[in-house]
Amino acid sequence: MNYCIQCGSEAVEFRIPDGDNRRRHVCSDCDYIHYVNPRMVVGCVPRWEDRILLCRRAIEPRLGYWTLPAGFMELEETLEAAAARETLEEACARVAIEDMFAVVNVTHAHQVHIMFRAELLDLDYAAGPESLEVALFREAEVPWDELAFPSITYSLERYYKDLADDTRRLHITEAPRMRLGGTRKASTRGSD
Amino acid sequence: MNYCIQCGSEAVEFRIPDGDNRRRHVCSDCDYIHYVNPRMVVGCVPRWEDRILLCRRAIEPRLGYWTLPAGFMELEETLEAAAARETLEEACARVAIEDMFAVVNVTHAHQVHIMFRAELLDLDYAAGPESLEVALFREAEVPWDELAFPSITYSLERYYKDLADDTRRLHITEAPRMRLGGTRKASTRGSD
Repeated sequence: MNYCIQCGSEAVEFRIPDGDNRRRHVCSDCDYIHYVNPRMVVGCVPRWEDRILLCRRAIEPRLGYWTLPAGFMELEETLEAAAARETLEEACARVAIEDMFAVVNVTHAHQVHIMFRAELLDLDYAAGPESLEVALFREAEVPWDELAFPSITYSLERYYKDLADDTRRLHITEAPRMRLGGTRKASTRGSD
Repeated sequence: MNYCIQCGSEAVEFRIPDGDNRRRHVCSDCDYIHYVNPRMVVGCVPRWEDRILLCRRAIEPRLGYWTLPAGFMELEETLEAAAARETLEEACARVAIEDMFAVVNVTHAHQVHIMFRAELLDLDYAAGPESLEVALFREAEVPWDELAFPSITYSLERYYKDLADDTRRLHITEAPRMRLGGTRKASTRGSD
């Protein structure tokens, strides 16, 4: 942060404001406090019979790795609407959002990842601009070694554990800090 | 938003950036995009035997109304840590955070409210700087007409419904837009 968003001053200090207990970017000229809070990344597991829809990332970080459709929640939408919108944008797919089942605190990235179970409404999916490809996978076909983020691995593990247990629970965890590897070129495609 | 946080320019426009589909504050001089996303308000229902701890607000909005200890999630903390910290700050109370049980989309306020069940660890509670008073209430004593926000009413209704049903579920809803009334001066105090 270089300039005050309120008055344009360069005199922005990183200090504890009066009456607070935590350092913020505070403008020394107009006293404006720039609060920064964690952001929500919201997505879903789109299910079609015994298969789920995954997307291979066309963007960094983790370009080339597989992920669930998910992204930053926007203003003026609910969590469920955000999950459905991201699925439409990344996989061109329509879903009925069901229950929230995985919440991952990604503290080092200042994010909370929130995943829903969902039903894929038709098979007219396709790669959106942020995906290289989109494909359906049976459980035995999931590319576990090529998943993009620990929160995706955690979510899919819990998704299949609940299926095996014939239950629907909410699972919460804290993600380990991840050393993000480079771009992955190889594709592991699911069944068509 | 008056000035670009990156370069200090006044030429900040509210428009759709290239490759995006939604209006953002974009600097016409340095192209910096100022993303704004919903924030999480995290809290808990602190339980002591058959009573729960509520706080009477010392700050606007809804000064004088009763609420659960809750507040904005900060960077570098988990949801559970945020709920415990807010309880310590607003009620000077120590809790063991249990399961997430209520999620309220407050879209018009650009917030998601997330509530956990919790156990109060001792009775050394007190009003923090943002509370006028803090008190324990049995279910029949809850000041339903003096609760601060619809998300608090929803959370407490579902909390007691789950208790009656001897179950623990996660409840998700969207809060209605609320016409915030003025300050409430009267106090409805719970049992000591």
